[in-house]
Amino acid sequence: MSQGGGAAAAAGENGVSPGNVPVCYYGTAGRVPAAVERRVRAAELFLRCATCGLAVLAAALLSADRQTRIFFSIEKEARYTDMQSLVFLVIANGMAACYSLLQGARCMVSILTGGVLVSRPMAWAIFFCDQVMAYFTISAVAVAMEAAMIGKYGNMPFQWMKTCQLYKRFCAQAGGAVACAVAASLNMVVISLVSAFNLFRLYGSGKGSK
Amino acid sequence: MSQGGGAAAAAGENGVSPGNVPVCYYGTAGRVPAAVERRVRAAELFLRCATCGLAVLAAALLSADRQTRIFFSIEKEARYTDMQSLVFLVIANGMAACYSLLQGARCMVSILTGGVLVSRPMAWAIFFCDQVMAYFTISAVAVAMEAAMIGKYGNMPFQWMKTCQLYKRFCAQAGGAVACAVAASLNMVVISLVSAFNLFRLYGSGKGSK
Repeated sequence: MSQGGGAAAAAGENGVSPGNVPVCYYGTAGRVPAAVERRVRAAELFLRCATCGLAVLAAALLSADRQTRIFFSIEKEARYTDMQSLVFLVIANGMAACYSLLQGARCMVSILTGGVLVSRPMAWAIFFCDQVMAYFTISAVAVAMEAAMIGKYGNMPFQWMKTCQLYKRFCAQAGGAVACAVAASLNMVVISLVSAFNLFRLYGSGKGSK
Repeated sequence: MSQGGGAAAAAGENGVSPGNVPVCYYGTAGRVPAAVERRVRAAELFLRCATCGLAVLAAALLSADRQTRIFFSIEKEARYTDMQSLVFLVIANGMAACYSLLQGARCMVSILTGGVLVSRPMAWAIFFCDQVMAYFTISAVAVAMEAAMIGKYGNMPFQWMKTCQLYKRFCAQAGGAVACAVAASLNMVVISLVSAFNLFRLYGSGKGSK
């Protein structure tokens, strides 16, 4: 993302020839060339694509996760729908994947066209959505990990049994899905920091002490 | 918090008399007077104090939460230590309370002295700690809410019983504590946004399009 017209205008004022790719200023710390700006945008694109892939993988692993056991001639099947926290994790990762895909497409267009003007309202919208998604995915992962811990270790005082002793393969696959979801949510946290940087630098006077 | 010397220098350049209280510029959106900057700092102080109070209340409610029941002449006591997620919530809220107290003191000093220079390393440190605390408290709340949901509604497929049917008073008090923790964590999220704003505006050229 870039400051678009604002940065280009700044380039003109300071005698640096403005081009299609906007130049970004880091306050008194010196000028950051377009190449660095492009690298930041490429990193953002990579993070959004990685988030999309990891979230899809987590949701797919959980959706396909099932194990059947027979207890005293009664057949029982464990599925992710048996646990609300895993359903929540699938929904959260599905949303994160769709959102990352859309934002990734926007980043791609921004890189290919050599610079899309980012206005304050747009920067606010991206920032707000990124923040919500980051907290949402982190919460979903935390909830799923709590359920996974109860499943693995149980809770003796409240007589919640260790489910993972009965459904080992189900738990192993769910563990893999949670690991993917953790990686996706950490990516979302980093992305939310990038969008915070892209928004709030629009408000700076560039006079902060180093 | 303020941009300190940077903002004051900007005031001098633009013909606005600099004072002890730094003046903050919001890019091309116009100048923000010291009064607004003071109000932002007062709001931050209020939020940090409120977070401290709510976190202490949540931790105290959980720590004092216990209920004894007799089942077939066997006495059983429910405590927050019976559930790891509640222990995690007490620890997280204790940390949030201490952290908010320290940061609140810093805000108070900043307001009383009429302006403390905030350097980039200090702004980065505050930003980093605020982000970590926000995600940490949100995760702790999510984990506790998942355990609370299992306690209230149980999980039939995995035979996790509804504990709250047996320990109603314990669950009601834990619910109040979780509500306080939710409010504290939401405060931390808002505070993390304020510190992101205070950090990243130090990097801006102030040329963003409105």
